[in-house]
Amino acid sequence: MNAEIVVIGTELLLGQIIDTNAAYMAEELNKIGVGVLYKSTVGDNAGRMREVLSRALERADVVITSGGLGPTEDDLTRQIAAQVTGRQLVLHPELLAQIQQIFAQRQMPFTENNIQQAYIPEGALPIENPQGTAPGYIIEAEQGILISLPGVPREMKYLMQTAVLPYLRKKLGKFQIITSRVLKLCGIGESTVDYAIRDLIQTSSNPTIGLLAHLGQIDIRITAKADSADEAAQRIGELEAKVRERLAGQIFGADHETQESVLVRLLQEHQLSLAVAETNTGGRISQRLTGVPGIDAVFRGGVVLTDRASYQRLLSLSEDAFESHDLISLETAKRLAYMVKDCCGATLGLGIAGYRQSRDGQIIDPAVPSFLAIHMTEGEYITKDYYISGPAELVQTRVTTIALEMLRRAILGLEKS
Amino acid sequence: MNAEIVVIGTELLLGQIIDTNAAYMAEELNKIGVGVLYKSTVGDNAGRMREVLSRALERADVVITSGGLGPTEDDLTRQIAAQVTGRQLVLHPELLAQIQQIFAQRQMPFTENNIQQAYIPEGALPIENPQGTAPGYIIEAEQGILISLPGVPREMKYLMQTAVLPYLRKKLGKFQIITSRVLKLCGIGESTVDYAIRDLIQTSSNPTIGLLAHLGQIDIRITAKADSADEAAQRIGELEAKVRERLAGQIFGADHETQESVLVRLLQEHQLSLAVAETNTGGRISQRLTGVPGIDAVFRGGVVLTDRASYQRLLSLSEDAFESHDLISLETAKRLAYMVKDCCGATLGLGIAGYRQSRDGQIIDPAVPSFLAIHMTEGEYITKDYYISGPAELVQTRVTTIALEMLRRAILGLEKS
Repeated sequence: MNAEIVVIGTELLLGQIIDTNAAYMAEELNKIGVGVLYKSTVGDNAGRMREVLSRALERADVVITSGGLGPTEDDLTRQIAAQVTGRQLVLHPELLAQIQQIFAQRQMPFTENNIQQAYIPEGALPIENPQGTAPGYIIEAEQGILISLPGVPREMKYLMQTAVLPYLRKKLGKFQIITSRVLKLCGIGESTVDYAIRDLIQTSSNPTIGLLAHLGQIDIRITAKADSADEAAQRIGELEAKVRERLAGQIFGADHETQESVLVRLLQEHQLSLAVAETNTGGRISQRLTGVPGIDAVFRGGVVLTDRASYQRLLSLSEDAFESHDLISLETAKRLAYMVKDCCGATLGLGIAGYRQSRDGQIIDPAVPSFLAIHMTEGEYITKDYYISGPAELVQTRVTTIALEMLRRAILGLEKS
Repeated sequence: MNAEIVVIGTELLLGQIIDTNAAYMAEELNKIGVGVLYKSTVGDNAGRMREVLSRALERADVVITSGGLGPTEDDLTRQIAAQVTGRQLVLHPELLAQIQQIFAQRQMPFTENNIQQAYIPEGALPIENPQGTAPGYIIEAEQGILISLPGVPREMKYLMQTAVLPYLRKKLGKFQIITSRVLKLCGIGESTVDYAIRDLIQTSSNPTIGLLAHLGQIDIRITAKADSADEAAQRIGELEAKVRERLAGQIFGADHETQESVLVRLLQEHQLSLAVAETNTGGRISQRLTGVPGIDAVFRGGVVLTDRASYQRLLSLSEDAFESHDLISLETAKRLAYMVKDCCGATLGLGIAGYRQSRDGQIIDPAVPSFLAIHMTEGEYITKDYYISGPAELVQTRVTTIALEMLRRAILGLEKS
């Protein structure tokens, strides 16, 4: 079974938006063994949409569209899908009820134009969308299967996982499994990882190994093909063990784990609690941690500080505490770590004293320092200084990554004070 | 003149790479008045590339490809471009010399397979590539113009700017300018915006109006074509005035402005300062604000609270302050707003008391409340309750959007206490 992905929306042809939906859909389809042969993008234009959808149905077994299901005049996907498969649009009262319910929940007025979202091509299987107001549908037409999903990435992903992939898996029956495992590392360069496992990358064919660098994070992707999930898992397991041996202590997590989810688990396992005093990370550390379920039991609070006055007010630091130190220094970071831990009654305190951005926020400026300190037990600190150049947002992101990795290593005893 | 962009490479159909080339090319083409009607992606497969390129030449005036010009077996663009335009590949000695020079400069061995990069379709105009080893070309064929560029973003961009755009501008002669202006709204539904300006959307052709919904934000995009920048600006200005009239007070900013950049500007203009006490936004409000240049002068600090104990410790709330109230209530939000403002010495205090996520973090769960309060002057609060269902991250994002919009409206006197 092969597929074509059709992304619909004039904004994508203006180039002001980068399409991430198609890559997600392609990856998920490949995982269940459905090869993607083409991706097409077309604007909100009836004639051109008709051409692209007809052609896609001719050349692929399954066509999946994204976008054009909203309530506005521009949203033509339903109509064109009905036309190219020779159907009428029919109202589904249960979809209408569900859309109205979402509006009620969100306390937003339900306007007339939203009714059209409850119309789908005759005979199509509706895909309810609890994440938004645009339902999708599956048409089993003569020319092939046509599936339409909304363009909002979160909704599209949810419906892929809960409706489209299960539907296709059932259609496929027995299929070759393609499984991946992603090992994640932070605070280490791509070339260092490449150097450590280069021979494994070159000599492995099933599983294969690939590296992908994100902002401050390296993913090692191990991908196996097999007839069964067990066989795939075994193939991956063997290679993973070799990779882990080469990079002992550096891999913070795997697959859907994040730095913050791993950290919350470690805090729970070690019966520790954390409080955080942030400067140039601007609250990002607190924000990432508080997004994790179970955080309540291990997070005692955070403060975001901008100037000397806020240090003093929020952490009751006496005037003279700063007299002998620079505001941005290792001493200040240690003091912040101690004070925030003390103030919030946590077992661990993290303090960061750092510059918000390079001068003028220019990337090319010289790197500015961030000083990080974790207060472990009385008088014991783990510290680090980190230099980066760039605008405020980049500094926030990178220093947060460094801080979370430092906390992980501190809890596991991988860093010495 | 209109164009189709064809992106070539199997890796893009596996979904492991997000294509950013097509968006760049589309934006640059639109700027000089070349509309992009289709984008297509195809793998490194001769038959399918032939189909896509032939079809593209049929339906567009100019076809621009990206990718498939490298030295390996997989790189088929040259051959297929020659086939679909009925030409032979011919060696260009000056291209070969240039490729060899690049290898020499980089002190890399020149291998045999690189010679094929100096072959381009007969009669094509070569595009030298000083940034890499894959030259491009322009074929003026009977079916239309076919231009091939390498897939490496840096090289593609360089050749677009130095060769392709100048070539197309010359072809176009006097060219039309396409300019857009984006008006941004938060805390309002797409269908409400559509309802308010539907007639303008329907009746406007130059400029056109389009709507785009992000997470909690609606963009109204006004796009004009004109012979000069002045004329385009005037056309946009007239329609913008009508849109603004319909949505008075709802548009928070335009183009590259963000909620936080607008808010920082308003705080500066009104000589106000802000302190923030966050619960279920987890620090995201502080984080977004502190990413804006100039924030230091107007942001007095933030606290991130999780439980009753942290409320008391960080904001010196006495035990009995909570006795008579629920922890998640409007009263608590007001108290947080007052305390954080007082504690940090700001003129405005924002307090949020809200649930972090729906039970179990499931999307389908009933919405949970967030109570928001801004302390304006003694005894004067602006308040709001907001209901949302979903996981912690979604709650963080949406409540932050609501809070920033509420602050904007409060400063502008659009919200009454």
